[in-house]
Amino acid sequence: MDVPELVARAREGRPRAVARLISMVENGSPRLREITAELCADRPSRARVIGLTGAPGVGKSTSTGMLIQAFRRRGMRVGVLAVDPSSPFTGGALLGDRVRMQEHATDPEVFIRSMAGRGHLGGLAWATPQALRVLETAGCEVVLIETVGVGQAEVDIASLADTTVVLLAPGMGDGVQAAKAGILEIADVFVVNKADRDGAQAAVRELRNMVALAGRAWRPPIVPAVAVRGEGAEEVVAALDGHLAYLESSGELGRRRHARACAEIEAIALAALRSRSAHLHGDRRLDALATRVLEAGLDPYRAADELLAAVG
Amino acid sequence: MDVPELVARAREGRPRAVARLISMVENGSPRLREITAELCADRPSRARVIGLTGAPGVGKSTSTGMLIQAFRRRGMRVGVLAVDPSSPFTGGALLGDRVRMQEHATDPEVFIRSMAGRGHLGGLAWATPQALRVLETAGCEVVLIETVGVGQAEVDIASLADTTVVLLAPGMGDGVQAAKAGILEIADVFVVNKADRDGAQAAVRELRNMVALAGRAWRPPIVPAVAVRGEGAEEVVAALDGHLAYLESSGELGRRRHARACAEIEAIALAALRSRSAHLHGDRRLDALATRVLEAGLDPYRAADELLAAVG
Repeated sequence: MDVPELVARAREGRPRAVARLISMVENGSPRLREITAELCADRPSRARVIGLTGAPGVGKSTSTGMLIQAFRRRGMRVGVLAVDPSSPFTGGALLGDRVRMQEHATDPEVFIRSMAGRGHLGGLAWATPQALRVLETAGCEVVLIETVGVGQAEVDIASLADTTVVLLAPGMGDGVQAAKAGILEIADVFVVNKADRDGAQAAVRELRNMVALAGRAWRPPIVPAVAVRGEGAEEVVAALDGHLAYLESSGELGRRRHARACAEIEAIALAALRSRSAHLHGDRRLDALATRVLEAGLDPYRAADELLAAVG
Repeated sequence: MDVPELVARAREGRPRAVARLISMVENGSPRLREITAELCADRPSRARVIGLTGAPGVGKSTSTGMLIQAFRRRGMRVGVLAVDPSSPFTGGALLGDRVRMQEHATDPEVFIRSMAGRGHLGGLAWATPQALRVLETAGCEVVLIETVGVGQAEVDIASLADTTVVLLAPGMGDGVQAAKAGILEIADVFVVNKADRDGAQAAVRELRNMVALAGRAWRPPIVPAVAVRGEGAEEVVAALDGHLAYLESSGELGRRRHARACAEIEAIALAALRSRSAHLHGDRRLDALATRVLEAGLDPYRAADELLAAVG
């Protein structure tokens, strides 16, 4: 099937066309450029993008499931991208192991897709914006991007999402450690999941203190939830709505989306430069330079100059 | 003080010169290039680089402290880089809150440094190789790089370290979730910390099964430890030695270091291209392109073409 036809079918919300396009995007299809052009020409209405992140074990998938339900109750069409950087088990497969999400597997208004993130720096940055465009073309009004981990992956998601939700759970490392991972800088909404467990109130209190100290223009609300029972769903959605209203009234929504577009263009341009350099010289020149850095005391800045002079 | 003098003092193992140089490197000093050249010209002997990573709460700092002690018992000079991506609390500061490490704060053969990672993609990739060179110049024979989190940050550390230690603790999310975060691909040694807790043996068993299934050429050993009491220190070091012996005999050590040098040169070259583009056109051209992507259906590939044509 050719790309315009696939895109036309995705526009009708046909799940197989959506899945096929996301696979092509994720696998770096030679038709990636054509697909992106077709999706952009279509100018679908923009989805609200919500990132969910947190350490393993906090209940990200369960919380994503809870949010799917909450947005479905509003009659919205929902897309989900579950991004596990370099996971060997989720590469390109549809979600099978996430019980809470499977409830939605047969709902024609819910599109769920697991992506592997390719395991290299920028893997997420590459494929996700295109996958997002596919889901927008399919008419998704809200897209949830779930990612594993605390660390660099979070920074990625913060740059992709309009609103970033950081999930925590009692007893998963204390607040100070949470702060160390830089989550205070990227969280727009905190959800303390498993709030029926010991230590939940203490976690909420500690977070509240840290948030007050951080002194950002937007003070992230802290919402307790028990995602496995759906408790707190409406409160979380209310917090998300509050943040969206803030983004719109402050002009921050436009700024975030503009920064996102800049980052995407730059990433594509840098990748093009990179492949141009590899194409011209194989990787032999770089190899030789690396050897000189390792064995002959060449400094890497001078090595980079030589590389650029050769490409330029 | 000028750069050659600072480097000379670092070579004598003076802590203040070491700290100053790492700060300059971390803060992207305008003299970064000069510092790097001076450090490389010096051609210090290479340190053994060990990365430690894991989710918040598994006891990374305590385990790092345990390893410092173990290497000190061998009479080795030890460097530590604690990298917390985008943490607002550790930016450039010496470690103050890591009790186990403070024991070593007055040991002249131990250099401990906390780095903030700058919170952007590649922050770690940038500053860490130079900080490592500073520690090598100061005569460190082993450098421990501690990083927070499971996710993209781990991939970074795996590309920087000769040996990557993944720390787990019982009850911190089950094995399947650990696998999802891609740790199986990057772990050279697993340490199950807090091994005196319930569930430790089950965690070891589960990991053992996963490791067997992964079928890598090197099968990562799984070592139980109670870092807070120093239990398991010698076993962990023995596992690290085993991996180093494997790296040397298989030729993998040279390959890893070569790949690391390639990545560093490329990162510097790409950053130079990027700043060249920004310098030529301000960011106005990119801004205008981003606006057209957002509002006029321009696709980002065509936008990247235009950006490159303007720079080229």
